Amino acid sequence: MTLSPQRIARLNDLLSAHDLDAVAINPGPLLTYLTGLRFHLMERPVVLVVSPGKEPAFILPELEMAKVSTLPYPVHAFSYGETPEIWPQVFRKALHSLDLFGRTIGVEPRALRVLELRLLEYGAPGAHIVSAEEALATLRIRKDADEIEKMRQAVKIAQDALEATLPLVKIGMSERELANELVIQLLRHGSEPEMPFSPIVCAGPNSANPHASPSERKIQAGDLLLFDWGATYEGYISDLTRTFAVGEIDPKLEQIHKIVQEANAAGRAAGKPGVPCAEVDKAAREVIEQAGYGAYFTHRTGHGIGMEGHEEPYMRGDNMKLLEPGMCYTVEPGIYLPGEGGVRIEDNLVVTETGSESLSDMPREIRVVG
Amino acid sequence: MTLSPQRIARLNDLLSAHDLDAVAINPGPLLTYLTGLRFHLMERPVVLVVSPGKEPAFILPELEMAKVSTLPYPVHAFSYGETPEIWPQVFRKALHSLDLFGRTIGVEPRALRVLELRLLEYGAPGAHIVSAEEALATLRIRKDADEIEKMRQAVKIAQDALEATLPLVKIGMSERELANELVIQLLRHGSEPEMPFSPIVCAGPNSANPHASPSERKIQAGDLLLFDWGATYEGYISDLTRTFAVGEIDPKLEQIHKIVQEANAAGRAAGKPGVPCAEVDKAAREVIEQAGYGAYFTHRTGHGIGMEGHEEPYMRGDNMKLLEPGMCYTVEPGIYLPGEGGVRIEDNLVVTETGSESLSDMPREIRVVG
Repeated sequence: MTLSPQRIARLNDLLSAHDLDAVAINPGPLLTYLTGLRFHLMERPVVLVVSPGKEPAFILPELEMAKVSTLPYPVHAFSYGETPEIWPQVFRKALHSLDLFGRTIGVEPRALRVLELRLLEYGAPGAHIVSAEEALATLRIRKDADEIEKMRQAVKIAQDALEATLPLVKIGMSERELANELVIQLLRHGSEPEMPFSPIVCAGPNSANPHASPSERKIQAGDLLLFDWGATYEGYISDLTRTFAVGEIDPKLEQIHKIVQEANAAGRAAGKPGVPCAEVDKAAREVIEQAGYGAYFTHRTGHGIGMEGHEEPYMRGDNMKLLEPGMCYTVEPGIYLPGEGGVRIEDNLVVTETGSESLSDMPREIRVVG
Repeated sequence: MTLSPQRIARLNDLLSAHDLDAVAINPGPLLTYLTGLRFHLMERPVVLVVSPGKEPAFILPELEMAKVSTLPYPVHAFSYGETPEIWPQVFRKALHSLDLFGRTIGVEPRALRVLELRLLEYGAPGAHIVSAEEALATLRIRKDADEIEKMRQAVKIAQDALEATLPLVKIGMSERELANELVIQLLRHGSEPEMPFSPIVCAGPNSANPHASPSERKIQAGDLLLFDWGATYEGYISDLTRTFAVGEIDPKLEQIHKIVQEANAAGRAAGKPGVPCAEVDKAAREVIEQAGYGAYFTHRTGHGIGMEGHEEPYMRGDNMKLLEPGMCYTVEPGIYLPGEGGVRIEDNLVVTETGSESLSDMPREIRVVG
């Protein structure tokens, strides 16, 4: 929380550099990053409007006002009661107080809803409401030592939780039962209850779907068993994947596991300051392509990670953004054979001054469970 | 899932009745209600566009395509790979296929983001993009027997989980530790890992903040201890609150508990077919006002409940919507004394043919724990 005033100052610099008169922020990681407060995205609008050189305006329900007193810097609160009819007037008052009529207001296209957008449009007549994505992309992209320590802890919690879950794997358990056990272990090992995402636990043919939800399917001998899971620690997250063999598996599946493991290693080795994100993608992808499975690696190699599971920088073949110290991202190549099974191996990395370090170190080679 | 084709048909009727040429739906309860599929709101857009009399268009990433094959009715899928640059063209192709250029397209203001809105605007030149809130408000508002059974189960899981947690309450435990234990019990008792919300567990002065997050504060003798928690069962949720005494508490706190219990009973008794939502709010609020604590009941009496924690119908003093059989809602009056403590008692009700039934029956009178 002590960092927050500096963060607002850096935000103000970015806004000025991008010719934005203000940015309007609703509940999500950026709001938490700037205020230390956590709000849920609910049916009532909560919007922080930051305009360089002015006290930020905070529009929120009266019943959330208690949170505002914990802020480390002054804001001008515009609260409202239970009647939605007054929301437009409250927005107009707040935006007028910042002299934003007719100005350029940035928003986060992936966070702000049509609800808040229409209220901003009404609240600041004549304003241009534009994407602040570019201006904001760099604000959180380089993690400081304190943030990296939290991510390291989130990784440790996740790894310890999976190690505690593996002995519980039994043939005949459903994917869902196993997912529940993993969540329990995540909590027991210190994850915050608001996890980055519900663990993916999928086995056999289901593992060939990169975004499968745990189903009632029971785990069988010969299955690949994939866990994609993460923990939250003080608002920072981990996002890992490991794939196991339930008893003896088809040599072909063992072979794709080996290829993915090599692709993961190549992807991890590629990252260092000055290297484009595309190189990380390329390094992992080439291993899979050269093994003849290029068509079965159907997604990018990774994404940024911090307070969110998916944020900048993205490890995509077309992303020429250069890595810098403090950037954190996943390396998660996979091969998915429809009807047979899939393998993904995912680590969380931080760029150092001279290379990159994997925060996760759980064994990557195939292990037999069940 | 067998219901889905009927649900699409009812949606089409509502769209026609509200002069909407289509509705564009992104991940959330409505998408799940219509498709049985669960998508997370991620950085990639996922949008189902339903236009009466036509096969729906489904815009989604290639890596989610496996889910589409499980749909109980045909859709026209428009998938895309990893390059965001092609999103606008994919949206244009999809919206063109439904002949939506220049038409009126409804959206959910609380679900659709600026990301999808801008893609819809580009994808359907000249289209009017308006709120479909009114058209959609009634689609899910009356729950059928199957839905009510799922909610009943979600209530039972929540109640059993709290009963299993209460014996673990010890003076000196932190709110957060207790919240983690409650989540573990929710999972053990069969809740899906995607819970409706992170349980609120707050004690002493923290209980005076209706939306407090569990903190590191340790539970002390003399505290009020408030749990606001819920479970998820097959996509349907519960949302309950009970408030306990940690050892002996100040008679004034005991007194406000008694008042809130009476307000909760009055609110529960007020609901039946033909009664406006405002009456439920009024019935509960009057008890608190007459006891002289009106200023300390700072929120509405309740909200609708089903696949979401907060949905129609809202129990607000200005809401003249009439209750109908099958509507489900919370009754959750509270009194919050800043610096001292707060009490809330929340039940989940369903409107029957002749009155209303509380799905929750956990004792409401004050109980001593710790």
